[in-house]
Amino acid sequence: MKRLTILGSTGSIGQSTLSIVEQFPDRFSVAALAAGRNVEAAFAQAVRWRPQLVSLATEELADQFTARLKAAGITEVQVTYGTNGTVACATLPAADFVVSAIVGVSGLEATYAAILAGKPVGLANKECMVAAGEILTRVARERNVPILPIDSEHNAVHQCLRVGARNEVKTIWLTASGGPFRQLPVEQFDAITPEQALKHPTWVMGRRITIDSATLLNKGLEVIEACRLFDVRPSQVRVTVHAQSTIHSLVEFIDGSILAQISVTDMRLPILYALAYPERPESTLTFDLAALRRLDFEEPDFGRFPCLRLAFEAADIGGAHTIALNAADEVAVEAFLDRKIPFTGIPRTIEQVLTLTPEAHPETIAEVLAADQKARQTARKLVTRTGQGNQAS
Amino acid sequence: MKRLTILGSTGSIGQSTLSIVEQFPDRFSVAALAAGRNVEAAFAQAVRWRPQLVSLATEELADQFTARLKAAGITEVQVTYGTNGTVACATLPAADFVVSAIVGVSGLEATYAAILAGKPVGLANKECMVAAGEILTRVARERNVPILPIDSEHNAVHQCLRVGARNEVKTIWLTASGGPFRQLPVEQFDAITPEQALKHPTWVMGRRITIDSATLLNKGLEVIEACRLFDVRPSQVRVTVHAQSTIHSLVEFIDGSILAQISVTDMRLPILYALAYPERPESTLTFDLAALRRLDFEEPDFGRFPCLRLAFEAADIGGAHTIALNAADEVAVEAFLDRKIPFTGIPRTIEQVLTLTPEAHPETIAEVLAADQKARQTARKLVTRTGQGNQAS
Repeated sequence: MKRLTILGSTGSIGQSTLSIVEQFPDRFSVAALAAGRNVEAAFAQAVRWRPQLVSLATEELADQFTARLKAAGITEVQVTYGTNGTVACATLPAADFVVSAIVGVSGLEATYAAILAGKPVGLANKECMVAAGEILTRVARERNVPILPIDSEHNAVHQCLRVGARNEVKTIWLTASGGPFRQLPVEQFDAITPEQALKHPTWVMGRRITIDSATLLNKGLEVIEACRLFDVRPSQVRVTVHAQSTIHSLVEFIDGSILAQISVTDMRLPILYALAYPERPESTLTFDLAALRRLDFEEPDFGRFPCLRLAFEAADIGGAHTIALNAADEVAVEAFLDRKIPFTGIPRTIEQVLTLTPEAHPETIAEVLAADQKARQTARKLVTRTGQGNQAS
Repeated sequence: MKRLTILGSTGSIGQSTLSIVEQFPDRFSVAALAAGRNVEAAFAQAVRWRPQLVSLATEELADQFTARLKAAGITEVQVTYGTNGTVACATLPAADFVVSAIVGVSGLEATYAAILAGKPVGLANKECMVAAGEILTRVARERNVPILPIDSEHNAVHQCLRVGARNEVKTIWLTASGGPFRQLPVEQFDAITPEQALKHPTWVMGRRITIDSATLLNKGLEVIEACRLFDVRPSQVRVTVHAQSTIHSLVEFIDGSILAQISVTDMRLPILYALAYPERPESTLTFDLAALRRLDFEEPDFGRFPCLRLAFEAADIGGAHTIALNAADEVAVEAFLDRKIPFTGIPRTIEQVLTLTPEAHPETIAEVLAADQKARQTARKLVTRTGQGNQAS
């Protein structure tokens, strides 16, 4: 029985993780849930799963939550809050495995704490790796703690890598759906609305990651994540646009063999893989290979999607540059969704922030968070200014 | 340094194996060559590779060969002949690895002897597995001798299987090019000439295997081979028609993940994999994934290709039926190439032989060879009769 801590339990990955626990009651149970602000959903989860510990975003929410538990006569669930609360969930002695699914760098400290505590981590939070991957993977290697990627591409890579030795890897090929604007004339990119950008062709996901998929910045973050997770150079990672999202990624070995992973586009599959690794439990998430008719591929257009180029450039420099790439994008995407900057303002903002970022290699999580804050401030100033500029033009 | 015995050194796989040895002189050397009837080619190989032992088909050819060696002043190469000679090559103490590439069941005894002698085998001869796979795999398991498949499909499966445990395999999906008649109206199958059938869309191969690719009997033999090599039931093997031959096969696991192997259509790649396993040496046999545009798949048409259905039926029964399937096909293909029977006479002959084959499970190689001879006799009678019938109609 693997007892899980789920960081971000009320989000999409958190809920999918709990649906896996529901399907495999003999394999998995819930030790702790870090839930954020959605008290309603967190309470329902606590009632269903009776974790040892639940963490909410604030003391006030934790008090509300405690009162509701008391009213329901539930006494075995402890309640905590804030970053310390999330860290307490991540390091709970009763937890055997931590699912890191808090979006953004706010999940970083707890993920780091989990690795320090020797807990195997299922990582759904790619910003962790992008901002602090150098630190996280170093500590994980030192303590022999496995990090199992939960996003579909890196999960596919993790599977394909089992077919050879690490020094036999030539290239990791990440597939990209290409987003909704793969075929839109580039002149029309300025006029893209948030509503258009929020329609992803193959995956249903959160708002930021959906926009990041439309700019291909998401694929850029995955390139950086792949470098850190699998200890390869940026020049060893390439992207192929594969609109059907059937092949989730590929690994090319030095002998010329390429391994590819295919499955349904359902996050429960990489979650199950990470939770059960190295075993593969039987699931109902089957891909109908007999019905497969056609797979298409094309090279990514770096001109149309400058975010992808920026990510490769940031990956080459590493350190503060990958932190800034992620931070600037998060601010720029928010500004785009708030209609403060156009779609094309996203890469412009990121590029400007990167230009203003000094080459530096943070060595602690505190330094990472400081670099992240600094990049956000720079980006915020830029989107305000750019926004005004755009309104004027 | 791995010292190789190559059974069938002057054939296509044998020559490709030697080209791999040429490319990796630090990894591989040649211990013995079993060459058959092509004295000219065998002599050139002996001069180049200086094996300890060379075997020819007959005593007369061996004498010719010895005289040529003497004339050339080569004294370190021993010469032998016949089945005993092939077995001597396969069991040579100086050999670390045996490449079994003699076409047809004539390679069977030597392959069996190699496994008995504890030599890892690279198996390019699928008839071995079809006729005697139950015996060969049992002995290999008992003696812990690895059998590494050299044909592209099973080599792909071998790679994909490394990504999970054997009891986690749901289905092995063999890809088939579909052969040259994938889209020919079935009414025109009677009129197919040997010349048309000898044009394979993606692979350049021997005559029988090319015809077997056109009837899909070859895929049927591979289904049976997969059952034996990978210890799965016929119902766990399926075929998908994939005209580009880019994906060489796939393995579907019970959790829903499917692994696929992609590479150039060059037999040197599976040969290199088998010879170097578990390592992957760097090779120049690279697949240009960036240039990949499209992959197509369709379900095989069992009505159009009855040989595939017959193979699944024979696989279900096993034993003498798979022996008869292979033997009857070899006779029928010869008869087709000699214009004695039409293309559609191939499955008809096989089906008739299978109907006349009693259910039996040979337990020795001698029994296998006897069952093989019996099926061939039955098939020969049938093709003579059918041939006359066809001339009359």
